[in-house]
Amino acid sequence: MKSNKKDMSLLVVGSIAFDSVQTPFGKKDMALGGSASYAAMAGSYFCNTRIVGVVGDDFPQANLDLFEQHNICSKGIEIIEGKTFFWKGVYNDLNIAETLDTQLNVFADFDPQIPKEYESSEYLFLGNIHPTLQLRVLEQIEKPKIVACDTMNFWIDGERELLLEVIKKVDILFINEEEIKMLTQEKNVFMAASKACKMGAQLIIIKRGQYGAMAIGEDMLFYSPIFPVRAVVDPTGAGDSFAGGFMGFLTSKGKINKKIIKHAMIYGTIAASHTVESFSLEKLQNTDMKQIETRKKIIRDSVVF
Amino acid sequence: MKSNKKDMSLLVVGSIAFDSVQTPFGKKDMALGGSASYAAMAGSYFCNTRIVGVVGDDFPQANLDLFEQHNICSKGIEIIEGKTFFWKGVYNDLNIAETLDTQLNVFADFDPQIPKEYESSEYLFLGNIHPTLQLRVLEQIEKPKIVACDTMNFWIDGERELLLEVIKKVDILFINEEEIKMLTQEKNVFMAASKACKMGAQLIIIKRGQYGAMAIGEDMLFYSPIFPVRAVVDPTGAGDSFAGGFMGFLTSKGKINKKIIKHAMIYGTIAASHTVESFSLEKLQNTDMKQIETRKKIIRDSVVF
Repeated sequence: MKSNKKDMSLLVVGSIAFDSVQTPFGKKDMALGGSASYAAMAGSYFCNTRIVGVVGDDFPQANLDLFEQHNICSKGIEIIEGKTFFWKGVYNDLNIAETLDTQLNVFADFDPQIPKEYESSEYLFLGNIHPTLQLRVLEQIEKPKIVACDTMNFWIDGERELLLEVIKKVDILFINEEEIKMLTQEKNVFMAASKACKMGAQLIIIKRGQYGAMAIGEDMLFYSPIFPVRAVVDPTGAGDSFAGGFMGFLTSKGKINKKIIKHAMIYGTIAASHTVESFSLEKLQNTDMKQIETRKKIIRDSVVF
Repeated sequence: MKSNKKDMSLLVVGSIAFDSVQTPFGKKDMALGGSASYAAMAGSYFCNTRIVGVVGDDFPQANLDLFEQHNICSKGIEIIEGKTFFWKGVYNDLNIAETLDTQLNVFADFDPQIPKEYESSEYLFLGNIHPTLQLRVLEQIEKPKIVACDTMNFWIDGERELLLEVIKKVDILFINEEEIKMLTQEKNVFMAASKACKMGAQLIIIKRGQYGAMAIGEDMLFYSPIFPVRAVVDPTGAGDSFAGGFMGFLTSKGKINKKIIKHAMIYGTIAASHTVESFSLEKLQNTDMKQIETRKKIIRDSVVF
């Protein structure tokens, strides 16, 4: 017998990885990374969170423990024989990552299996994975209330048709500025967003790196600036943290409207600000609602007139 | 005998030019341009404005009439034998101008003479001209209350010492993001702004093109977004219009504080939005306070949460 209770958890599907990153501020080897890790951690400050992903048998128990400590359910993390997805990159300019090595390892055959108890999830974030996998997840979720997805130039270029099918099925599209122009063949960002809205997603969240983010929907335009971080140590995961913070707040409210979207944008911004202040999830996993609300006040003062 | 009456006009010193511009939206030949023209026109919606500049005897009376119609006093415009400053450029990408031709003409020997009746000006905007000329203007103004200047990479590179002398004497520095990084040798924009504040100007206004602008001072951070213009016809003069709108509003208030700075940033943004919607000053010269206030409401809704 089915329960009528609302399922107020955020389900995150995406990559879980080891990252080796070098920036002008130093370097860090084999640290926890991946879109799902960042997004789930950011979301965990606002709601119960669930991860679906795959790791190898080299994945430390300490990382699973970290998730559990943050009320991130890791039952959906499949552990299979082999090595965890590995990415190595360097940022010379802090705005552009140069990939030095990518080893998909167990992620190459990732076939997301949604645990029975997750099927009733109402809030879903599909991290940047192959559109086919994003569609496969959607098939397994009974009746999602809000679905958001992220994507990247690689899929826009190589899997356009499948990606358009995903966009038709989601409510919110997270995408960066260059990518939305590429997707829509429009040079003006406002024109591009309008066109993307017509593709299916009602709300387009445009990530602009050091320039913040924009939310555009029919009858909606909202800018969030960046929190003034004076030392960006490592930008890896900023976009995923943004999406996770945004979706976590949305999930906690249990509904969506303009006001909630605006606040979600600000919480996403704050999550991203923590992420860029350290390598890996170090700062993001060690913040709290008090720090988050302090940053919210600073942001408010920097935009309200 | 000196009057104690406050002089609530904005004095603008800078270039007055003919521009020939080509953009993806079309082209326009020999149209009114120059930093002083844009800044004074933008400021004229808020206060009485005065221009100091130089033109050739080919400068049409219609342009002088246009200034007068907007209460822009043109007594400080020197008309000398020869041709007016001419600039020709093309924007392939709407964010970067490519210069095809520059003919300084009468501007080559520009030596700004401040008319006697302007010497009491309390609000002064020094457009982007040689730092020596900016200093020469400052010598002629009795007791300015607020001085702002604009500059560019050319002077940062070639006239660093003189430019630093100017910055020491001004209250507000308008500068674009790449340029402030160049000036301060800092990669992080917040670090760069702090360093620039220590050079003398108490308020740094960083122009970020399609990403809006930031005001940074001790204990102050404010972001203004851009007004959502869907067709940027010609970005020439956007920065000068921003500065003019900002300074015009400041002049109209007769004082400066955080709240006034924030509103000035928004009026600067709106002036720039009108400028980019047409070639030359076409839209900027044809707006009114009703349109300006409508845009202000739209901007407010796009940032307030």
